[in-house]
Amino acid sequence: MTADPMRLAVDAMGGDLGSDEVVRGVISAAQELAGTVRFVVVGDETAIAAELARHRNVPPGIEIRHASQTIEMCDKPREVYRRKPDASVVVSARLVRDGEADAFVSIGNTGAAMASAVFMLRPIQGIDRPAIALPIPSLAGPVILLDAGATVDCSPRQLLEFGLMGSVYAREVLGKASPTIGLLSNGEEPSKGNEVTRQAHVLMAAELPGFSGNVEGTDVFRGKCDVVVCDGFSGNILLKTGEGVAEMVIKLVGEELRRFWWMRAALLPLRRGIRDLRARIDYRSFGGAPLLGVNGVCIVGHGKSDVDAIVSAIKVARRATAASLSGVIAKEIAELRNTESGEGEAP
Amino acid sequence: MTADPMRLAVDAMGGDLGSDEVVRGVISAAQELAGTVRFVVVGDETAIAAELARHRNVPPGIEIRHASQTIEMCDKPREVYRRKPDASVVVSARLVRDGEADAFVSIGNTGAAMASAVFMLRPIQGIDRPAIALPIPSLAGPVILLDAGATVDCSPRQLLEFGLMGSVYAREVLGKASPTIGLLSNGEEPSKGNEVTRQAHVLMAAELPGFSGNVEGTDVFRGKCDVVVCDGFSGNILLKTGEGVAEMVIKLVGEELRRFWWMRAALLPLRRGIRDLRARIDYRSFGGAPLLGVNGVCIVGHGKSDVDAIVSAIKVARRATAASLSGVIAKEIAELRNTESGEGEAP
Repeated sequence: MTADPMRLAVDAMGGDLGSDEVVRGVISAAQELAGTVRFVVVGDETAIAAELARHRNVPPGIEIRHASQTIEMCDKPREVYRRKPDASVVVSARLVRDGEADAFVSIGNTGAAMASAVFMLRPIQGIDRPAIALPIPSLAGPVILLDAGATVDCSPRQLLEFGLMGSVYAREVLGKASPTIGLLSNGEEPSKGNEVTRQAHVLMAAELPGFSGNVEGTDVFRGKCDVVVCDGFSGNILLKTGEGVAEMVIKLVGEELRRFWWMRAALLPLRRGIRDLRARIDYRSFGGAPLLGVNGVCIVGHGKSDVDAIVSAIKVARRATAASLSGVIAKEIAELRNTESGEGEAP
Repeated sequence: MTADPMRLAVDAMGGDLGSDEVVRGVISAAQELAGTVRFVVVGDETAIAAELARHRNVPPGIEIRHASQTIEMCDKPREVYRRKPDASVVVSARLVRDGEADAFVSIGNTGAAMASAVFMLRPIQGIDRPAIALPIPSLAGPVILLDAGATVDCSPRQLLEFGLMGSVYAREVLGKASPTIGLLSNGEEPSKGNEVTRQAHVLMAAELPGFSGNVEGTDVFRGKCDVVVCDGFSGNILLKTGEGVAEMVIKLVGEELRRFWWMRAALLPLRRGIRDLRARIDYRSFGGAPLLGVNGVCIVGHGKSDVDAIVSAIKVARRATAASLSGVIAKEIAELRNTESGEGEAP
């Protein structure tokens, strides 16, 4: 990209599949990105070195940064950077803060990654709370949902900020020329919604280019807009409901299929197709959701991330860094009219 | 049921399929319930009489009550009983208030039915806001979701009341001996949730027999509890997300199937099975959700209700009336410890 290759810190320790899987992901990404990115793999030095040694043809540009602590399930995310200053995720965030890395990727403990990023990189001026922008499947291709769980209770102004950040991400990183932004609500009319979303609708209609109004859960999966804005509570309900319904429908389809046992052999590819479908619509397999709203690039991935998902997260980090994502967000939020006073008329 | 048959008012005017479909539903229910229920069909007298005249063997016990007005899409629900006092849904609610009917059924405009019920029948003492209890599909059979859209913004105390009402409904009308009640949240731990649900969790744990803690969207469709409590905003997001994801998955499965065009004939029953599945998991086809929290029985149905859904709604009205649903709710809410003061410890 530039003469001086980009540097990405990758936290090796959080994933369900262990640090070996992360190291394999880094090797695979390094091969694919051929010299445009240098990697700092953060975590248990011995384990990382042992896994690297197991591979032949490891590309150059992968260094190890030892971190002596790891995050456990019982650690409270907000206390992590204070109680475990040498945890791999905290060290990764610190590398970005200190300019030793341009971005960091962490899989597994989203709360700890978020807390480390907010503490080390600080929120962008003008952004009140961060949001996780997660790609979810729709009939018209992936849609960006934010917030996917970073900020549970939101003010109308915070939802407006999420809309702006999601719009910048879709445009600068995902290449959508003029992204449309919908506000998740219980009906399309502006009068629908709870108190917060009704007020957010007024703000967004006045301030946010590309705002296309309220969307309902059905609209999201028809791909009616590029970016869907909601608080982290509603975002979680949408994600988990989607997961639960997909699981139920695929199971019921499987039961239908079982009635056709006499042509089992012929239907084997169909069964396989439906199994693949499950993976295709599993948002967890998309790999790599940015935490938007901090000064720097932080990409979080699901704990179950495999090599492919890790490579995907690394590529998201690379694109977001190349696009100066947080810089563009900072610039556009500064240009946003001050709406704190509660005025909400169209300019 | 008793020597004196129950009397149900049925609003004929709100459905998408017209009053003829409602009249056919009433005839079908009257045949099935053979003399245990008398019907008052409310709406345009001429249209109802004409449809009745088209059928042979119409059972006795169906009378018509003329109503000169109908609700339009543009009518604001809250103004309906004032602006259109002779609308069929208002007349239906008034019949219950005046003791001329034991319950009423209305399909189509849920908001208007709700406003009429609240205005005519008044809230049960101790119940702050009404809730709609909707059966939704799960892998373990139907689960009751409330609120499905009556009350968008809820206090913790209101969520507790919803839990109690849903529990009474599941026990007295649906025959679940000891229903379990879950609180929809973004994680299972009591510490998860937005501000309102975290407080509601404490109240429900202290006050509500059968409370089984927080449930996530995935748990709902696995049938982890009998009753799921949430505010009307989250309830709508869950329902519409479920609808959107089911639509998407079934469409994608259909595309997989299309690859097997060469055994199209053999797979025809499978296609049919998957189409039936769509209806089986469509919550709109379940027919008949009670509006809980008013003095009297009010059953609302989806605008798309066909004869089967109308018969189902009528049966729900009959069971709820026979069980004295609103009387039992009034009794149990009075027994609930006063929690207004904010105390939330287990007794």
